[in-house]
Amino acid sequence: MAHKLETRPVLTLAVAKLIAAAAEEKALKHGLSVAIAILSDSGKLLYFQRMDNTSNASVDIALAKAQHSVNFHRPTKYHEDLVSGGNNIVLGVPGMVPLEGGLPIRVDGYVVGSIGVSGAKSSEDGEIAEAGVQALQAYLAG
Amino acid sequence: MAHKLETRPVLTLAVAKLIAAAAEEKALKHGLSVAIAILSDSGKLLYFQRMDNTSNASVDIALAKAQHSVNFHRPTKYHEDLVSGGNNIVLGVPGMVPLEGGLPIRVDGYVVGSIGVSGAKSSEDGEIAEAGVQALQAYLAG
Amino acid sequence: MAHKLETRPVLTLAVAKLIAAAAEEKALKHGLSVAIAILSDSGKLLYFQRMDNTSNASVDIALAKAQHSVNFHRPTKYHEDLVSGGNNIVLGVPGMVPLEGGLPIRVDGYVVGSIGVSGAKSSEDGEIAEAGVQALQAYLAG
Amino acid sequence: MAHKLETRPVLTLAVAKLIAAAAEEKALKHGLSVAIAILSDSGKLLYFQRMDNTSNASVDIALAKAQHSVNFHRPTKYHEDLVSGGNNIVLGVPGMVPLEGGLPIRVDGYVVGSIGVSGAKSSEDGEIAEAGVQALQAYLAG
Repeated sequence: MAHKLETRPVLTLAVAKLIAAAAEEKALKHGLSVAIAILSDSGKLLYFQRMDNTSNASVDIALAKAQHSVNFHRPTKYHEDLVSGGNNIVLGVPGMVPLEGGLPIRVDGYVVGSIGVSGAKSSEDGEIAEAGVQALQAYLAG
Repeated sequence: MAHKLETRPVLTLAVAKLIAAAAEEKALKHGLSVAIAILSDSGKLLYFQRMDNTSNASVDIALAKAQHSVNFHRPTKYHEDLVSGGNNIVLGVPGMVPLEGGLPIRVDGYVVGSIGVSGAKSSEDGEIAEAGVQALQAYLAG
Repeated sequence: MAHKLETRPVLTLAVAKLIAAAAEEKALKHGLSVAIAILSDSGKLLYFQRMDNTSNASVDIALAKAQHSVNFHRPTKYHEDLVSGGNNIVLGVPGMVPLEGGLPIRVDGYVVGSIGVSGAKSSEDGEIAEAGVQALQAYLAG
Repeated sequence: MAHKLETRPVLTLAVAKLIAAAAEEKALKHGLSVAIAILSDSGKLLYFQRMDNTSNASVDIALAKAQHSVNFHRPTKYHEDLVSGGNNIVLGVPGMVPLEGGLPIRVDGYVVGSIGVSGAKSSEDGEIAEAGVQALQAYLAG
């Protein structure tokens, strides 16, 4: 009946676990402890894990980075770079988290969800998040 | 590339306007002023209109009813009836709005969004919301 | 140096995954889709997963049930039973979630965390949460 | 039974009072009025006192500084120095309080809680907080 409505791809729990496992593997490889949050496109939590010895703040920040990326359709680093470049207006935008480690998850041009990582240096958080996204792309291409 | 991900139908703005127009028409026919909120499945606002002479509270309540229905996958009347039947536990559930006038919008078994109406008696709010949902079903079947 | 401070046991991520896996297994066995949240004693999120076809509301409610149990050191059913018995004062207590499916996780008399489950009937949510707690007790006794 | 779980040291109320007494003594010695907040590692309040003539804002700020330090595992001055050095990204991090006077309380490598002080100049707040932490270290070493 929905042939008159558009459709879009969605993240399942199995796919979220695949993404998180790749991110965790990357963190472990570098001896890092991080919190990893994966949201569906609704901005609701789909999967989360906090590695041992991660700070309480990293729990909140991983969730906030993921929320930012699914809401803004942008990596958090996009806004970090704007602030680094002197654009402090960005700091006043509601829901802003200008700190690398959050990435939208795109499939076929749609933002189907996001990943947020916190606990290491923000550049490392970004690499760990990227490892998760790349695992999804490899899975879809495979 | 997304052939490995599931897909689902989504509400577009054009369809949301179709739903709201039918709801407004129903309200006007009965000489009622209401606020009408339509959310996408993410729980984010897709379309909203407040008819003249609608109270401030109705703005908030229309949004809350719609939020309830998209989150719980239930008409708000479902929970209103439970409370009317003496089940006060319902009142303690986070995000609960046990007051007729909120409906999930279902297509092919998926909750693609919701409509919330407030401003008249709650049974009238419910009829207005229902008119919106029926217009969508007629459109899809047409 | 801490010999003058008391110590207490803590949940690790590996143990949280063990608990969640047992809860998920129970849900799958009964063909149910639920969200499962595990908090450490701090009330911060340690592990979370949302099974496919679980409603948005269940994400929030699973988290809220877990928060209740770690904060109150009580199963959510304890307060549900009070409300069922006519004690509506309970509904006015901050942070109250009087709905079965949240359990504190106790080890050696300490509340080391909690589990919250939502998505099925609340009695089923409770059984799923219980399966998670029992898996931990079996592990500790093993 | 918990021999399979890790353990960690915890702050008791008696120890928190010892820390606060040392901080208060330092404040009185310098004729200063401050609010002193001590949190356990969960980020929940363990002990609090507001000296006479301390402003309302200082109550909130003492709590916020302590929350920052227990969450980030960092002195608030760490982030104050980053902002002073021109790093405005810090201002966009959720839960950030970049103002001296908050310290994590570490024992055996664990953050067992935090202290936040507000009411005087932030450098003085920092000295008062430090006096509290040093009293704990002396107690543990004694």
